[in-house]
Amino acid sequence: MVYTELSTFSGYWLPKLEAELCALLSNDEPAVACHYDMMRYHLGWLDEQLRPHDFPAGKRVRPLFCLLACAEVGGDPAQALPAAAALELLHNFSLIHDDIEDGDAMRRHRPTVWKVWGMPQAINVGDGMFTLAYTAMQRLACRGVAAETTLMALDLFTQACQALTEGQHLDMKFEACPEVKVAEYMRMIEGKTAALAGASIAIGALVGGATPQQVSALHCFGRSVGCVFQIQDDILGIWGDPKVTGKAVGNDLLRRKKSLPILHALHHPQIGAQFADLLAAAPEPEQLTSVLALLEQAETRAFAEAQLQRQHEIGLSALTEALGEQGADSALLAFATGLLHRQA
Amino acid sequence: MVYTELSTFSGYWLPKLEAELCALLSNDEPAVACHYDMMRYHLGWLDEQLRPHDFPAGKRVRPLFCLLACAEVGGDPAQALPAAAALELLHNFSLIHDDIEDGDAMRRHRPTVWKVWGMPQAINVGDGMFTLAYTAMQRLACRGVAAETTLMALDLFTQACQALTEGQHLDMKFEACPEVKVAEYMRMIEGKTAALAGASIAIGALVGGATPQQVSALHCFGRSVGCVFQIQDDILGIWGDPKVTGKAVGNDLLRRKKSLPILHALHHPQIGAQFADLLAAAPEPEQLTSVLALLEQAETRAFAEAQLQRQHEIGLSALTEALGEQGADSALLAFATGLLHRQA
Repeated sequence: MVYTELSTFSGYWLPKLEAELCALLSNDEPAVACHYDMMRYHLGWLDEQLRPHDFPAGKRVRPLFCLLACAEVGGDPAQALPAAAALELLHNFSLIHDDIEDGDAMRRHRPTVWKVWGMPQAINVGDGMFTLAYTAMQRLACRGVAAETTLMALDLFTQACQALTEGQHLDMKFEACPEVKVAEYMRMIEGKTAALAGASIAIGALVGGATPQQVSALHCFGRSVGCVFQIQDDILGIWGDPKVTGKAVGNDLLRRKKSLPILHALHHPQIGAQFADLLAAAPEPEQLTSVLALLEQAETRAFAEAQLQRQHEIGLSALTEALGEQGADSALLAFATGLLHRQA
Repeated sequence: MVYTELSTFSGYWLPKLEAELCALLSNDEPAVACHYDMMRYHLGWLDEQLRPHDFPAGKRVRPLFCLLACAEVGGDPAQALPAAAALELLHNFSLIHDDIEDGDAMRRHRPTVWKVWGMPQAINVGDGMFTLAYTAMQRLACRGVAAETTLMALDLFTQACQALTEGQHLDMKFEACPEVKVAEYMRMIEGKTAALAGASIAIGALVGGATPQQVSALHCFGRSVGCVFQIQDDILGIWGDPKVTGKAVGNDLLRRKKSLPILHALHHPQIGAQFADLLAAAPEPEQLTSVLALLEQAETRAFAEAQLQRQHEIGLSALTEALGEQGADSALLAFATGLLHRQA
């Protein structure tokens, strides 16, 4: 498959995914309508006054990975739609709770659920969406997926949920922690980003009829894609073009975010101490040039890109293991590569 | 089975349940140990400094219902242990989040998780425990339960989770709501209390090999038991003996809690307005006598007890439908009746 086919694939399957999500969130009981309306607001289907609206949705990366993996191993993506919906709901549940935990008032240019309806209702809305993700997963069995396969898919799903909460635990712990090692950071993103990407692809492949070896190799491919995605995010957070990212130059430096490049520089034997001093004083935009010069000296960008390249190669090798020569031409790889080459 | 057998049953199975819970929460990775330690703290196994301790545990009502139902239909409770553990974890996850949502600083005479480790970590600890509840449920398939039966049990479990978040949504909505009808209150406790009691018994019966008709009737019995339990709680919240409950006389009146008796009095055609005035002014302990006299005049206690009796009868009839004559002698009924006759 080439990229034009990828857009055909998305164009065909994403509306079906939206219909699946819509059906999962439908509720006929007026007494609890507001509980589900808050979920619909978060997904961009309603505005703050709960009037129908069509805000830009997320990129649906995880469902697409799931459906593509299913197709790639010769399965029918229609059977994987409930899992694709479950993965999107799981991701969105985690965003609702993350926004509370991080105190973020805005997401996708709109007030977050807790900002509009308060923290107590928002926690519960997240719990409700988490539950609906399981409702969705369990629908696999109604689409002709064997009970044993559905249970295996549920195992992969629940492992990803567990990794997600472990990753979030580490992320919050690191914020209060003066010293975070690069290896600890990698462990955190494996939980917070990579596990769900891996599960998305593994579940799609499983439902599509892949062998256990293929499922395992594609799981590994997906985890690498997740790591690549996060490291690319970290690189863009410092060196991204503000015109494309919509964020300030060196945004992560100004926010003193513990991203991979920043942790590398903090631990650098030559410039570490000086970099730490500059960062501790919360650099002003006009000091950015000297901070960036330090990163240049420490070859921080080259380090981050080497990590990214390493994950990319692990991923490619796993993909070849799963799909053979076909892997290089797969829409899965085209989609993953598209994410890697994004500029925002 | 008679009551002495019930205590034999608990004495035999509760330690096995604790072992199952313990295994589910075990984790060998030091990086995320604290995530699981906070769960162990909540369950009473560790103190605030994360040192081993043995605080009084919860009553394990839901796991016992599950194991008893399994035994009652002729099944082996060992097979239902993962589900029993899942139900306890689900209940405890909901307590962790409820404590944040309600701002409660104490639970079982100890500071709540959010009070010790802060709200962001506590939300995530709850999410982690919710996930472990599913890990537990999925273990049914490893204990010889057929894949199709495990999926049916998961369906019952997820339906209960959904009802739980709907009930919690209503509970929070009612707090900010001047007018709550008795029927709305009953809908709330069906979600918040009855659904999980119903699922506990239905899942135990399903795993134990009950017919679909038995599962359905026992589900109904469990929901009634949950309602009876909550209404009894509401009655004790006003008329309970302070020496037994450990709470002040008329505790719910002083806290202006929207419980069943209070809603009945608020809607009473004769005393409603006067009662509302007294309650709105936040009654002092010395005004309690006149508030209680109003409730007497409105026959509020008799109303609540009639509701309780009604639920009790629905439950008994469902139990007879499920178990026939054997129902009247069942340990399930003995356990449910014990909960009904509790004084605290």
